[in-house]
Amino acid sequence: MDKIAKKELVGNEGMVILDMVRRLNRRGATSNLSKLISKTHPADMAWVFRHLTKDERTAVFNIIGESEFVGEFLSELDDAFVIELVKELDPPSMAEILSDMPSDDAVDLLEILPEDLADTIREHMKKKDREEVDELMQYHPESAGGLMSPDFMYLDEELTAGDAINVIQNRGEDKEMVFYLYITHGDRKLSGVISLRELLLHPAEQKLKEIMNPNVISVSTDTERGEVAHVVSQYNILAVPVVDSNYTLVGIVTVDDIIDVIREEATEEFLQMAGAGKDREILLKSTKESAFIRAPWLFASWIGGIVTMFVIGSFEHELAKVIALASFIPIVTGMGGNIAVQSSTIVVRGIATGRINMNEAYKVVFKEIRVGIILGLVYGTVLGVVAFLGFAEPPLLGVVVGGAILSSMVMSAFVGTSIPLIFKRFDIDAAIATGPFVTTSIDILSTLLYLWFAKIFLNL
Amino acid sequence: MDKIAKKELVGNEGMVILDMVRRLNRRGATSNLSKLISKTHPADMAWVFRHLTKDERTAVFNIIGESEFVGEFLSELDDAFVIELVKELDPPSMAEILSDMPSDDAVDLLEILPEDLADTIREHMKKKDREEVDELMQYHPESAGGLMSPDFMYLDEELTAGDAINVIQNRGEDKEMVFYLYITHGDRKLSGVISLRELLLHPAEQKLKEIMNPNVISVSTDTERGEVAHVVSQYNILAVPVVDSNYTLVGIVTVDDIIDVIREEATEEFLQMAGAGKDREILLKSTKESAFIRAPWLFASWIGGIVTMFVIGSFEHELAKVIALASFIPIVTGMGGNIAVQSSTIVVRGIATGRINMNEAYKVVFKEIRVGIILGLVYGTVLGVVAFLGFAEPPLLGVVVGGAILSSMVMSAFVGTSIPLIFKRFDIDAAIATGPFVTTSIDILSTLLYLWFAKIFLNL
Repeated sequence: MDKIAKKELVGNEGMVILDMVRRLNRRGATSNLSKLISKTHPADMAWVFRHLTKDERTAVFNIIGESEFVGEFLSELDDAFVIELVKELDPPSMAEILSDMPSDDAVDLLEILPEDLADTIREHMKKKDREEVDELMQYHPESAGGLMSPDFMYLDEELTAGDAINVIQNRGEDKEMVFYLYITHGDRKLSGVISLRELLLHPAEQKLKEIMNPNVISVSTDTERGEVAHVVSQYNILAVPVVDSNYTLVGIVTVDDIIDVIREEATEEFLQMAGAGKDREILLKSTKESAFIRAPWLFASWIGGIVTMFVIGSFEHELAKVIALASFIPIVTGMGGNIAVQSSTIVVRGIATGRINMNEAYKVVFKEIRVGIILGLVYGTVLGVVAFLGFAEPPLLGVVVGGAILSSMVMSAFVGTSIPLIFKRFDIDAAIATGPFVTTSIDILSTLLYLWFAKIFLNL
Repeated sequence: MDKIAKKELVGNEGMVILDMVRRLNRRGATSNLSKLISKTHPADMAWVFRHLTKDERTAVFNIIGESEFVGEFLSELDDAFVIELVKELDPPSMAEILSDMPSDDAVDLLEILPEDLADTIREHMKKKDREEVDELMQYHPESAGGLMSPDFMYLDEELTAGDAINVIQNRGEDKEMVFYLYITHGDRKLSGVISLRELLLHPAEQKLKEIMNPNVISVSTDTERGEVAHVVSQYNILAVPVVDSNYTLVGIVTVDDIIDVIREEATEEFLQMAGAGKDREILLKSTKESAFIRAPWLFASWIGGIVTMFVIGSFEHELAKVIALASFIPIVTGMGGNIAVQSSTIVVRGIATGRINMNEAYKVVFKEIRVGIILGLVYGTVLGVVAFLGFAEPPLLGVVVGGAILSSMVMSAFVGTSIPLIFKRFDIDAAIATGPFVTTSIDILSTLLYLWFAKIFLNL
């Protein structure tokens, strides 16, 4: 994190590199290919890799595997490819690669491998590295403990500013984020923090405890990673120290990991809202796995469809009398469904970004109902006119469909707003609510409302 | 950004602070309230503020307005509140507040105000501050120029490491992100970068140009902000320098701003996917504004509903013969709509996170079709059986609805995958595609498929 990227920037030029890699590989120009790879940033190489065929990947990884940045490359790569590659390496050389990686990245990698393979690799690691890895593996991967790096710089508060600079000059090389220096007392208990720049502003003989900032923001090893992301972004800090239950400093989480957390959580939220599971790597899954992940969510809407079927079936008598009624079912459920998705998305995102105060959630509900009334009046009126002009009989059909659109949209705005709020209240992930749950309940309720309206107003 | 938060951490304890603020304000305990506010981090104060009533906000801002951190507070606050508060302040004192803020934050604030008010405030600013602000305001707010801070540390490459440390000690106070030192030659042309820690590792007499890293990653003033975010997160850097068309260094974008960009873009994408506009502040908008933002998207599904109505109307003859047919319309369109939303969400997110290679987009389409076949077979079969058991007449009804579900789901997976890919190909924001466009086309197409199936198989 402290290192500034040493390689050339390729940015959007990934496509160019991809083409060159393919061409060189086709020609078997291994030494040129090797030169190109060594000049490309590992993160860009990971992008290129994603777009190669299986054979090309094998050829390219044979070269990357020999290079010094293989560890960095692997930690930038998608999980599915990592598993594919690591299986082809022998455990001792994989252990060597892992030993050269920052231990938090090594743990992330081990955690995606099949357990027995991970164990074999761990056994081949040097004792010191293995212990570091084992230490980290005890934490839940979605907690601060699972995110943190143990290679950070800490200094005892009794040291002077001059001592601190000496330590940095001699030991700073492999540490992460030496822009913040964490200050400890006793047996590594966190007592404060000072930035490297602030350190330079003080006379060499001053003690750290006199110049440090004692109000240091920290998280605990079991803090949920979303909360860690919240702390780092809320207070605009570059890293946050992680302490155990005894307030002993055990690691730091840096902002680059936080960016990954924010992106990953957004992807999970997107998928959940669409009722497509929450597996971020779904694009890399096989057809069968993908169908398997998505099937249960469709089951909810399947059941809803069956219920709607029975609702309509129970009005068979009325429909037989006025067959035109059937034509309006999709527009009534569709308008309801769409406003419900708008409302629930606004609410789910509002909860995720902290914009909704759960104690005043009723305010949001009332506002959405008012929005539903306005939009329902607009679209209900125009549909009523269309129905009146388009269908001579029965004369009240316009009133029925107009009224059904209005009441369905108001009801849908209410349901779409309430379901995620209720889920949140019971500590269920609100994003789940917006997908099949909302649209399915709207289908049932709108159809019922509409046909019931028709029955009453048309005297059927 | 360089500063480590000086205030106490409140984190999740926002609610506690909120209650205390309310209680103290009700009791009129101004000096206690003032003490509480001064101990609270501005970012937490902004959170608290969001949950106060109008009167409470006025009372609390009277206190914050006097404090030294009013600028930081305002830049953490939601736009709608900023406008409300600034309108109540007189322009000279607002100008003073802006002068104390980092100029990029001052510009962000001016840009959300009504133009004439912003101009009046600018006129009251000190000449130097106004010029800095005017300089930044020429850039598009969604570009690197609009994001960047001009208060950064740069050093000429002819200086020595020792000179550099002297400069930092004397001038580093107000600069952003002095962990990276950007090195220039001639008239501020970017030539390299060195981290503050690396600087400490070199002898004082060495020249910066000998020890700097010349392969510095930079963006240009008109780079789109999403692309800036991509660069910062792709290469795991804490800040990226911004150069103009002459490669003159004009500013830096820091990672805290990037986090905001990532979050804001995710929120916009969520709203767009739900067909709810892309105004991130929609929760703070009035009922009327909210209805106005959402109405056009509902129009698409309204038109789709009318088309579906005519489709069903054109099968009136068939429906009159087998009234049970009407019962299955919602389940056929519903299953199609839900699998389409799954597919399009997976594709839109895949595009946003760079997981989809547009040159091999057909692979994604084929895979989604295969997923559609599997899920369509499963849900089509079970629905066919239900229809067969539930409805004695006509005997082929089960085949019709089962076949309709299968073909509708395959078609929907295809349409749901293709629409965002086609949008992307024409450089239209793919997220727009998933909302009303996909669900509306599915409603029309599924209904048509189903009734056409019925007509053929049931000889109607």
